[in-house]
Amino acid sequence: MTSATHDVLGIGNAIVDIMARTEDDFLVAHGMAKGSMSLIDEDGARKIYAAMGAAVEISGGSAANTIAGLADFGARTAFIGKVKDDHLGRAFSHDIRATGVAFDTPPAADGPATACCYVLVTPDGERTMNTYLGAAQNLAPVDIDPAQVEAARFTYLEGYLWDPPQAKEAFLKASAVAHGAGREVALTLSDSFCVDRYRDEFIDLMRTATVDLVFANEAELHSLYQTSDFDGALQQLQKDVKLAVVTRSEKGCIVVAPNKLTPVPAAPIKELVDTTGAGDLFAAGFLFGLVRNADHATAAQLGALAAAEVIQHLGARPQASLKALAQAEGLPV
Amino acid sequence: MTSATHDVLGIGNAIVDIMARTEDDFLVAHGMAKGSMSLIDEDGARKIYAAMGAAVEISGGSAANTIAGLADFGARTAFIGKVKDDHLGRAFSHDIRATGVAFDTPPAADGPATACCYVLVTPDGERTMNTYLGAAQNLAPVDIDPAQVEAARFTYLEGYLWDPPQAKEAFLKASAVAHGAGREVALTLSDSFCVDRYRDEFIDLMRTATVDLVFANEAELHSLYQTSDFDGALQQLQKDVKLAVVTRSEKGCIVVAPNKLTPVPAAPIKELVDTTGAGDLFAAGFLFGLVRNADHATAAQLGALAAAEVIQHLGARPQASLKALAQAEGLPV
Repeated sequence: MTSATHDVLGIGNAIVDIMARTEDDFLVAHGMAKGSMSLIDEDGARKIYAAMGAAVEISGGSAANTIAGLADFGARTAFIGKVKDDHLGRAFSHDIRATGVAFDTPPAADGPATACCYVLVTPDGERTMNTYLGAAQNLAPVDIDPAQVEAARFTYLEGYLWDPPQAKEAFLKASAVAHGAGREVALTLSDSFCVDRYRDEFIDLMRTATVDLVFANEAELHSLYQTSDFDGALQQLQKDVKLAVVTRSEKGCIVVAPNKLTPVPAAPIKELVDTTGAGDLFAAGFLFGLVRNADHATAAQLGALAAAEVIQHLGARPQASLKALAQAEGLPV
Repeated sequence: MTSATHDVLGIGNAIVDIMARTEDDFLVAHGMAKGSMSLIDEDGARKIYAAMGAAVEISGGSAANTIAGLADFGARTAFIGKVKDDHLGRAFSHDIRATGVAFDTPPAADGPATACCYVLVTPDGERTMNTYLGAAQNLAPVDIDPAQVEAARFTYLEGYLWDPPQAKEAFLKASAVAHGAGREVALTLSDSFCVDRYRDEFIDLMRTATVDLVFANEAELHSLYQTSDFDGALQQLQKDVKLAVVTRSEKGCIVVAPNKLTPVPAAPIKELVDTTGAGDLFAAGFLFGLVRNADHATAAQLGALAAAEVIQHLGARPQASLKALAQAEGLPV
């Protein structure tokens, strides 16, 4: 096994977030399940945009947020995802490259527009997402450069990739290439509704060791094993995957290793503004810890630190320097 | 004079802000004068975007920000400005309409792209702006609907309109129509460099009573009269225009009426994040006070309140409800 030239390669839906503050009534009136991610078509996108308030556009995408966070910590990163050569696609490409991420997936010259996600942030800081997948659904196995996967210590994938059919194949190709090169593969379960759509396949990915590390929040864990018994679900997860982290919002997280559960508290915040990206940035910090060969508790602290930064402002990409924040806390960078 | 169906009509450059945090070094390396607004061409825009960090896109434009702020307070507002029918133009139109502003200027089907402003925010919260005027420079007298001007109690214009030649004519047409209908005309001097470009014309606009109310910050006032003598400049301003407000950042403002100078303190803030829109939102609050027939000191308090809101987050449009903030302070809404 040659030494990795990248720390983490992310593969995910390349999405620009179109974010607006809203009242709970708006979600009810539009039949949206608060806190969830729903897929919408072009017509649905048009309707939501026409109805929603003044918006802010910020690059997003779950795995892309994680990779941007890792780059901000100082990791060597790359991203694979599909945009169209349109305004949003150019914005996405600019932003991820400006963060220091290698991003070489060729944009589509025609076909559907770059993916966008209408993110509605309620006064409690919770976000409800409506995603138009657009060009992102044309991510295909051909977009996965084996050399790039082989060169990365971790390949990080999002559960949302299970939505576009070709992307699922790209996911499996990347995992096979990574393992063939002795690398590790991480997966975020993305969203409890996403887990509900692909429960058996996600469990299969873990049990077949197609993925080595899983990130899940409490709702995703409960959905995965269809149980309200948290401890029972944790034990099941412990059996099913080599390493996992279950995030629990303000209750912190639990690192789930084969012989050990390590609870780590959340990092303190001044004000909760917008939870968008909390899980993505937790994963960034945790992976950064692994990359720096930190122990699990320290890696989880880095995750908690990054999550705390991103929920104190609008948008899912860090605004402060995560590296500087970690240094200030005496954490490894 | 019939009763006004709108409180304030704004006319300005329709611009989307493309905002990124940056270090002071970046400004120095690119020869930018910190805190100023510079005009750039398409090539300059491309270069700055390529060099700047990950960005956030938020509708902006000086007068448009003011009008959005007024709408947020609960005023009846309209805006005139030129966009192209492209992504940024649709975003601008969506956002201003979603705020409750009547915006009917037809977008250009071809020609230059919608205007954008690359806003670079340094760690001290100061913003440095580079504007590509694009479609905005095609705002022409034909875009000024006399009925709309006649229907508004105030017509609010930005000094930046002096940059595109046709927009200047649109400005003068609007002023003539407004005064013909017994309405009032307000002007913001926009930027000290803008004042430097058009000093004599701006003074002429005041002395000929083409404008009735002027907003200026300290730097603009000093530039206007080419003096470092603040009190002397204030006295000159008092002679030259019926009513003015000079804003002084954390030192508050001074309302300049013919026989009276009224100093009003700034509103307290927790954290300065981004000064973009501070002057625009001050003008929104002050005009809202006039619309509600408040006295000058109260109007200035409303201005200070709106400015304080906008400098505590990224972007020049209010994120919290200005109406609710004013109510909480016992100010008239």
